[in-house]
Amino acid sequence: MKVLKKGEFNFRRGYIVYPRLVVVVGVKLEDRVNFMSVVWNSPLSFDPPLYGVSIAPKRYTHDMLLTAMEFSIIFFPYDMADLVEKFGTVSGRDVDKVSRFGVELLEPAVLDVPVPRGAYAVLECEYFDHKLYGDHTWIVGEIKAIHYDKNVTGSKYNMPVLDLEKSRPVFYNGSGEYVTVDPRSIKKLR
Amino acid sequence: MKVLKKGEFNFRRGYIVYPRLVVVVGVKLEDRVNFMSVVWNSPLSFDPPLYGVSIAPKRYTHDMLLTAMEFSIIFFPYDMADLVEKFGTVSGRDVDKVSRFGVELLEPAVLDVPVPRGAYAVLECEYFDHKLYGDHTWIVGEIKAIHYDKNVTGSKYNMPVLDLEKSRPVFYNGSGEYVTVDPRSIKKLR
Repeated sequence: MKVLKKGEFNFRRGYIVYPRLVVVVGVKLEDRVNFMSVVWNSPLSFDPPLYGVSIAPKRYTHDMLLTAMEFSIIFFPYDMADLVEKFGTVSGRDVDKVSRFGVELLEPAVLDVPVPRGAYAVLECEYFDHKLYGDHTWIVGEIKAIHYDKNVTGSKYNMPVLDLEKSRPVFYNGSGEYVTVDPRSIKKLR
Repeated sequence: MKVLKKGEFNFRRGYIVYPRLVVVVGVKLEDRVNFMSVVWNSPLSFDPPLYGVSIAPKRYTHDMLLTAMEFSIIFFPYDMADLVEKFGTVSGRDVDKVSRFGVELLEPAVLDVPVPRGAYAVLECEYFDHKLYGDHTWIVGEIKAIHYDKNVTGSKYNMPVLDLEKSRPVFYNGSGEYVTVDPRSIKKLR
């Protein structure tokens, strides 16, 4: 094993902790809808159901979300990676991403958050908490509804799961690279 | 799209947000070493370099980590998924996982944390913060050193990256299922 000690590495290029499942955060504030890709994200609690996303304060989505106090967490399939890349590299300050990228919006179920067509899952989240960690804000939402595309999902324990034979999740590998899973590699160890 | 509203879904079975990159958290307290698999994890900040892991308070690792105030975040390859599964399902209360599973420990560089042989990357972390979110504690560490296996890593921007042709990351898909990426699916969009 080789070692890089603090001062010898730049975590901005910490791609050794990639590839990671990338989500898109959707926010609606008055009539404005915006989307931003977020690779730093994680579930946080079963009950209440909580999910966190990490967003830099300089991002347009950051203040927009903390004003709207609600947001969606969107799971796009690998074959829409080009849209995920655009959502992550273009700012909502400069561009209306909905019209620019031809996003079609579906009806939310509980909150006033964007639900785009083409996603295999969308979580409607109500603001729960936020905290600044270093140069990013960790924003936590409570999941109030789960949308899923019944054409590409199966069921396990009466809950939807992505059917990897029908569609694939999208993982970000750093520096504009995307990758997905190999469904033949599934192994059941329990 | 189908919808499940709050009360209609059990996020304990929220496998729709899987597969996810699973890490192993290592802790050493006095002479006792323990490892636990953690699928809820995320980088949080570039500078200072921060990384979070979500651990339920009832877990043996939880109090052990908050006493030791330092821990390692370990990235095992897909071909060691059986060890990751064992680390996630056996408690350190009952079993000494190091001897039971034949883990060989290497020397840490900066902190007194476990660095197991076989990982492709290990982050040595000093306690930074923790906060209870619902039924799990979000524990944040500051990365003080990065170990990486030079046999399976390449380099990008002078930082190590996993070479997906030589080894693969391990993703947890819920209910004891593991999966990895298809390196042929890499697409560069920037």
